[in-house]
Amino acid sequence: MSERVLAIGVDFGTESGRALLLDTGTGEQLATSVTRYPSAVIDRELPSGGKRLPDDWALQDPQDWVHVLETAIPDVIEQAGVSAEDVVGLGIDFTSCTVLPVTDEGVPLSTLDRWRERPHAWAKLWKHHAAQPVADRLNQVALDRGEDFLARYGGRISSEWYFPKLIQIWEEDREVYDACDRFIEATDWIIWHLTGAECRQSATAGFKAMWSPEEGLPSVEYFEAAYPGFDRPDEKLGDHFVALGTKAGSLRSEVAERIGLPESVAVAVGNVDAWVSVPGAGVSEPGTFVIVIGTSICDMVVHADEIRLPGITGVVKDGILPGRYGYEAGQAAVGDMLAWFVDKLIEQGEDYAALEKAASELEPGETGLVALDWWNGNRTILADADLTGALFGLTLQTRREEIYRALMESIAFGSRRIMDNFEEHGLELTKIVACGGIAERSPLMMQLLADTSGREVLVPDYSEIPARGAALFGAVAAGVFHDIDTAIEATRPSGMRSYRPDAQATEVYEEVYAIYRKLYDILGRDDVGLMHDLKRIRSRQERE
Amino acid sequence: MSERVLAIGVDFGTESGRALLLDTGTGEQLATSVTRYPSAVIDRELPSGGKRLPDDWALQDPQDWVHVLETAIPDVIEQAGVSAEDVVGLGIDFTSCTVLPVTDEGVPLSTLDRWRERPHAWAKLWKHHAAQPVADRLNQVALDRGEDFLARYGGRISSEWYFPKLIQIWEEDREVYDACDRFIEATDWIIWHLTGAECRQSATAGFKAMWSPEEGLPSVEYFEAAYPGFDRPDEKLGDHFVALGTKAGSLRSEVAERIGLPESVAVAVGNVDAWVSVPGAGVSEPGTFVIVIGTSICDMVVHADEIRLPGITGVVKDGILPGRYGYEAGQAAVGDMLAWFVDKLIEQGEDYAALEKAASELEPGETGLVALDWWNGNRTILADADLTGALFGLTLQTRREEIYRALMESIAFGSRRIMDNFEEHGLELTKIVACGGIAERSPLMMQLLADTSGREVLVPDYSEIPARGAALFGAVAAGVFHDIDTAIEATRPSGMRSYRPDAQATEVYEEVYAIYRKLYDILGRDDVGLMHDLKRIRSRQERE
Repeated sequence: MSERVLAIGVDFGTESGRALLLDTGTGEQLATSVTRYPSAVIDRELPSGGKRLPDDWALQDPQDWVHVLETAIPDVIEQAGVSAEDVVGLGIDFTSCTVLPVTDEGVPLSTLDRWRERPHAWAKLWKHHAAQPVADRLNQVALDRGEDFLARYGGRISSEWYFPKLIQIWEEDREVYDACDRFIEATDWIIWHLTGAECRQSATAGFKAMWSPEEGLPSVEYFEAAYPGFDRPDEKLGDHFVALGTKAGSLRSEVAERIGLPESVAVAVGNVDAWVSVPGAGVSEPGTFVIVIGTSICDMVVHADEIRLPGITGVVKDGILPGRYGYEAGQAAVGDMLAWFVDKLIEQGEDYAALEKAASELEPGETGLVALDWWNGNRTILADADLTGALFGLTLQTRREEIYRALMESIAFGSRRIMDNFEEHGLELTKIVACGGIAERSPLMMQLLADTSGREVLVPDYSEIPARGAALFGAVAAGVFHDIDTAIEATRPSGMRSYRPDAQATEVYEEVYAIYRKLYDILGRDDVGLMHDLKRIRSRQERE
Repeated sequence: MSERVLAIGVDFGTESGRALLLDTGTGEQLATSVTRYPSAVIDRELPSGGKRLPDDWALQDPQDWVHVLETAIPDVIEQAGVSAEDVVGLGIDFTSCTVLPVTDEGVPLSTLDRWRERPHAWAKLWKHHAAQPVADRLNQVALDRGEDFLARYGGRISSEWYFPKLIQIWEEDREVYDACDRFIEATDWIIWHLTGAECRQSATAGFKAMWSPEEGLPSVEYFEAAYPGFDRPDEKLGDHFVALGTKAGSLRSEVAERIGLPESVAVAVGNVDAWVSVPGAGVSEPGTFVIVIGTSICDMVVHADEIRLPGITGVVKDGILPGRYGYEAGQAAVGDMLAWFVDKLIEQGEDYAALEKAASELEPGETGLVALDWWNGNRTILADADLTGALFGLTLQTRREEIYRALMESIAFGSRRIMDNFEEHGLELTKIVACGGIAERSPLMMQLLADTSGREVLVPDYSEIPARGAALFGAVAAGVFHDIDTAIEATRPSGMRSYRPDAQATEVYEEVYAIYRKLYDILGRDDVGLMHDLKRIRSRQERE
């Protein structure tokens, strides 16, 4: 027992957090434990006093995150029946950009009576969308000024990112803005809480705060052109960031006591749930396309060089794995498009399993349908939130399982389109590793990814991929492994389910994909005004 | 009582026939009576001996039609409590092209023991689609030879028409072909049965048998190019046709006895359900667009001159009202597209009335959706059976009533597109008269027709429109009125529900229609290969 060398990873999601206990010698996951956030997503009223929130707001309570640490970590130790003394490293990952205002001592404003009733004092969750007008303005001004930084982000920044959220506070509650010393990513705040020292990683700065090691932030002139008076963009962000894989410190004594671990435990700098899935899924090499598929899709690939290409979410040095350029792309509606069909359109008529079974019995091309998977806009490669979904080929004979399959095929075609984009710009891709809820639950979706791309799809035979990746970083911080690559190599489980492309299916899907791609170009580019007009008319008519 | 001058119209539909008793003095409908066909649509096996029919067959039993005459006519007399002696005229209308092989005495082959077991001896219902390969071949050869007659039919003939059905017999059962003297429209056969004399109208010859008063039939060379040996195309059709409104004769004595009317009753030549709806709805003037809207849409307009224009079903002299050119167009999927959505896609989730109510509460343009109403191909103006439906603008927020409304709007846009086509070729249209099941049941559909076209829509306040039109022709045959126009004028009911276009709605729909029309051109013309490829792939994959 005492020969075991253990690491813990804690994955902070949208509704709950989960801890995972890893045996660094065998790669075995000894225990996991999930703790729900008591306040979950705060999108209706503040827990402090019932103050009603406007539409599109989404907040969280940092005390909920602390509750996860103090509940789930002791639980995995107890479940596994191991000695806490054998734990040497701790890593965490968080949703992003989830960000909160804190004092110079790292105290969240929302925990202080003085600020507790002020909505802007709370942590803004990644899916807080109330800063869309700020994002629109920042994008427009960047385009007008020909700002070079946009090229790192496929030409467009998102309302979910750092500066839209920060500037919303600056505009709407200057007192909160002035009162906070840092506006900090939650992943970095957890590290501060654990170690007592501020130590921020560079990946979120790069992917979410428009910062790069070479160029720093966009210019003050740019920010002032968009928001006159907003002349110190680095004021709350800071300018010192370290690479992923760095050790942030060790546990503070009072935290160590509360979570039941020795103070000696090494803590890695914070990570982000999507990116940490790459090492979590055992991937470190270029050429492997990692797809995290759930509500939406996050695609990741690493490469030795920086290649600027259009239509990606971002490319950031050290952004996914230290020492490499991390590329991110994605699809905006995936699981939620399927959920829309089942829960909202056909309602209780059928469940997912029955639909997937019926859809599985169809042949490629047999539905006669093609969908454009833009139910929630297109994240990449078109980066157009005003696109909407479309469905072609409907007949009086069309059955619901045919539509369901067509939606799944459109997700696969969307991934294929993104892979094509990478390859057309010199990033060769040889295989796919998929993880996330849909990868675990839907063999049909995995087979479609293989058949439409002609590439093998591998799915890890274990779940809790992000927490595993975080634990690996914890082990690296503790010095168990020299670096993350060594850690991945040493602990990679042998079990991966493999979905190989079927040659005949791939041939048919080449034909259908040609139709998809033509429709994609017509409605997403050449005649994109049609979709935009539809949405513009809808917005106007809804208001009236 | 004895001052009443009465006429009867009998409307033969797909599942049943109905009689209507009309007071020619007041225009009042005194009674109606429906009789279902005992054998309904024969599409699985022959009633005679259980012989299994191939797919796409649809037959009827002429004895069922006689049953309607002998049941429904006595019933309206009894219901109204009038004297049969006051009935002076009888008119009928039938589905078309419903057509049957008969002897030289007008006896249907299917009633003779010698032929009763042979499927081709039975009446082929309008929706018998097993002659599609024949129609395909006739179309291809006509195109290859540059046949001029195609221009009267918008460039394409249908598998439902006369010659595809006749040539199917010629090919598949030459004995039946040889044994019949006439292959006759059911509407003409009923008249033969009633009067004992063959007297055929020219409207079906024009609309369904490629005949015109000036040019006759397509050449023998054309038919022989398509089907070598089929060298007497007029053999079963004959070449003598009279205009609608002509008196065919009086009742045979044995028929008069069986249906309970005096032998003196004048019988008008047969009519067709769609076309007779024009006088039935009180329309005789050019410029009024008559829409019969049910499972599909039949559009009609009359005009003094012949204008050849693309994308119509046909233009035929005397085809709708005598002395004028009748123009027909239509939409292939209307009621059945809505039924697909309710019954097949969302199933028992909601009923039509609840969906229509929810859809009615939405504003024009608020759905953010546009549909192309091609679930069953496009009849006019594209005349392309291989087109399929499409739906644009879907989001995670899209609700089922929004899709339902978008489908209804697409029906209205389809009608607008057809009206635009007429107007662009010099046929001015000032208002719309709508009838049929959906006109009676759906105020929303009527308002959408008004709002999308900017034209007033009038819906007769009475039902049984075709039977009423047939009765008016009966009254004309009896000399009660000088001609059909006088009859329409004299009996037009005052009650018409009016749907006036809402100026604001029309303005919004102009914008949405511009999007519809652009998508229509892209997917129906410029890039029509995409839709065709989808269908081709589907057909191939289904076969495998």
